[in-house]
Amino acid sequence: MLDFTLMPKPQLEEKKRELEDAYRVFEGKHLKLNMARGKPGVEQLALSGQMLNELNSSSSFLASTGDDCRNYGLPDGLPEMRRLFAQMMDVDAGHVIVGGNSSLNMMFDTVSCGMTHGFAGCEPWGRQEHLKFLCPSPGYDRHFAVTQYFGFDLITVPMTSNGPDMDIVEKYVQDPSVKGIWCVPKYQNPMGITFSDETVRRFARLKPAAKDFRIFWDNAYCVHDLTDTPDQLLSLWNECEKAGSQEMVFYFASTSKITFPGAGVSAMAAADGNLSDIRKHYFYQTIGPDKLNQLRHISFLKDLKGVKAQMAKHREIIAPKFRAVLSKLDSELSGKNVGKWTKPKGGYFISVDVMPGCAKRVVSLCGKAGVKLTGAGATYPYGVDPQDSNIRIAPTYPPVNELNQAMSLFCVCVQLAAAEKLLKK
Amino acid sequence: MLDFTLMPKPQLEEKKRELEDAYRVFEGKHLKLNMARGKPGVEQLALSGQMLNELNSSSSFLASTGDDCRNYGLPDGLPEMRRLFAQMMDVDAGHVIVGGNSSLNMMFDTVSCGMTHGFAGCEPWGRQEHLKFLCPSPGYDRHFAVTQYFGFDLITVPMTSNGPDMDIVEKYVQDPSVKGIWCVPKYQNPMGITFSDETVRRFARLKPAAKDFRIFWDNAYCVHDLTDTPDQLLSLWNECEKAGSQEMVFYFASTSKITFPGAGVSAMAAADGNLSDIRKHYFYQTIGPDKLNQLRHISFLKDLKGVKAQMAKHREIIAPKFRAVLSKLDSELSGKNVGKWTKPKGGYFISVDVMPGCAKRVVSLCGKAGVKLTGAGATYPYGVDPQDSNIRIAPTYPPVNELNQAMSLFCVCVQLAAAEKLLKK
Repeated sequence: MLDFTLMPKPQLEEKKRELEDAYRVFEGKHLKLNMARGKPGVEQLALSGQMLNELNSSSSFLASTGDDCRNYGLPDGLPEMRRLFAQMMDVDAGHVIVGGNSSLNMMFDTVSCGMTHGFAGCEPWGRQEHLKFLCPSPGYDRHFAVTQYFGFDLITVPMTSNGPDMDIVEKYVQDPSVKGIWCVPKYQNPMGITFSDETVRRFARLKPAAKDFRIFWDNAYCVHDLTDTPDQLLSLWNECEKAGSQEMVFYFASTSKITFPGAGVSAMAAADGNLSDIRKHYFYQTIGPDKLNQLRHISFLKDLKGVKAQMAKHREIIAPKFRAVLSKLDSELSGKNVGKWTKPKGGYFISVDVMPGCAKRVVSLCGKAGVKLTGAGATYPYGVDPQDSNIRIAPTYPPVNELNQAMSLFCVCVQLAAAEKLLKK
Repeated sequence: MLDFTLMPKPQLEEKKRELEDAYRVFEGKHLKLNMARGKPGVEQLALSGQMLNELNSSSSFLASTGDDCRNYGLPDGLPEMRRLFAQMMDVDAGHVIVGGNSSLNMMFDTVSCGMTHGFAGCEPWGRQEHLKFLCPSPGYDRHFAVTQYFGFDLITVPMTSNGPDMDIVEKYVQDPSVKGIWCVPKYQNPMGITFSDETVRRFARLKPAAKDFRIFWDNAYCVHDLTDTPDQLLSLWNECEKAGSQEMVFYFASTSKITFPGAGVSAMAAADGNLSDIRKHYFYQTIGPDKLNQLRHISFLKDLKGVKAQMAKHREIIAPKFRAVLSKLDSELSGKNVGKWTKPKGGYFISVDVMPGCAKRVVSLCGKAGVKLTGAGATYPYGVDPQDSNIRIAPTYPPVNELNQAMSLFCVCVQLAAAEKLLKK
């Protein structure tokens, strides 16, 4: 009998004692491991070391426009960098703005622009009342936090294996106080799924009541494949052109997980109207982006082919880490009915749903034994998972041997929490 | 008879014809020169080329904290960079946040934070009505533009040779709808003067009616001396500590004119309350600053001594340019009563007041003959100089021989515009 939920009480009690013993062994190891954030590991960082050799005191520093990248100018970024991001994001290069080192910053600035100045000539969001933002969940905590900071009510939309539940999205956007939705369309954080063609088409065909409703399409993992049969994301840009809904979307991407998390390059794209609103905002906000870092990136990556070659090297390093996590989950938890998990073909996360009511307990047990996980609930608006079930696993940072240890502990904790819960009933 | 205003009409008419002839000669030269923006020249950019050799694929990338500068983390910036900025800004290092490549961006973000979230627990500015911001003029157009973008009424405060007219500032701050003032306290843009000790003390002792009134102290030229007897700016931080008014000020600086304008490092500082408001804002806004660029900067500049050595090299390049401009003004315009100008001991600008009503004409004449100047009026709120008199000269970008040509033309245009005006009376 493997299934915890069908196990006779004495057997389950015995099982629980075994798990407690196993847990105590882990406590004795004084582990200090971190699987909390989607942080590239040291080996991955080394893949871009060469980029720092691209510029030196005798470089030319000239962009293809003839502009000196050391000086002021080129607020939209280098044309060659805009072109590369356009290919990565599947949008038109003339509609791309290249920013600083953080695409989250560009998203924040876009929400902030909506708050103080508004979009499409509408009253600024900050002067409207009872604003709401849709948050497909489980999702990315830092997205949700931005709109919470600006005072939006966060509305949970359930995630399915095809993307956000579009029946629910289509219903919510009929409310004119719903102003936007956060999306990570490819290898979604944390589920790792990619929005289906039908989901993308339904997004393009949305008819929101609010003229200033905006889709925040954060294509953070657009080239972050981990298998030979990568997911294919339909181009929302193209679908919106067909549907005449171009002004409904802001697109974002970055090289944070291609080159350096802390010193990469970010970009956004938007159709004419939004672009004009955002360009105006940036005109006042900044003297322009760091073009030397763009020059460094373009010299190193060169083009989309170069990006893909770089991502193949990342895959060599992190695919084994994903396999290690999945293999532990399979071997330790399969058939026990204590949780289920995703098997992503790319991205940075594996999403585990443990027995409802057990996520906090699992994270706490792991933490006490020295393995830090993303806080239970973090993947839901306000940090509250109504089922207390979802846990986000970030396999990229620790080395494989540490991952194996951490996951062995994790699997003990998932079973222990389940046993505790079942025995309390 | 040199003085245009005392010249008999026939002599002035003769003078005007001579000047028109001289102007036509310049037109024939088809010049294409730019003195519009405070942009470092190519020789200055080369001074920091070595900085790009500081980091390469085999560097350690570790901050003094042990953090890997390539990865996420350290939202306040590298401790060594915070320390350096603290010395440059004359503030406490524990109160410094290091940002991206643009201090204007940090100022914009601070105003934006005031708009959407407010300071000191006050109602956000965006929810208050009829907001006003004080703009010492002539001043920096991009400062004024930020507050105009956010809907503030811009109030002109006259500049004196000791700084903003403090009698007027003290009067205006009694109005609770006055929320702040823009200041460039050292080598002010464009006058080049440094605020006197008494001016700094009066700032520290201001008693604004609004609890959320803030001084934006943009120390853009804090180490940008051009003589052996540099101006000394009293520390507003220290004076505010004495006066108990620490929460009234936001401090800003950057390396834009120390290393690279487009790829430098910026910083801000503030007392505990403001710092907590701003840190919260940045927590949601960004994944953190580009720490590799900070590491590159600190490896290259090392400390305040290193900064001063670097600035001495800048001085060697640009002091002759300032001398060339001043020498032309002296030799061509002295005693003619057609204008007066400042003789700054540092910074990036020389401010010329031509005969009232003539600034636009001078800029237009220069423009038609191929020399681009900052637009007349740009140094005043809304781009309108009530006297139509102030012109900002930016001597740093063109080489000396071009500057000489441009200034010869400029001096012809200043006289021609004056003659035209006097003859129209």
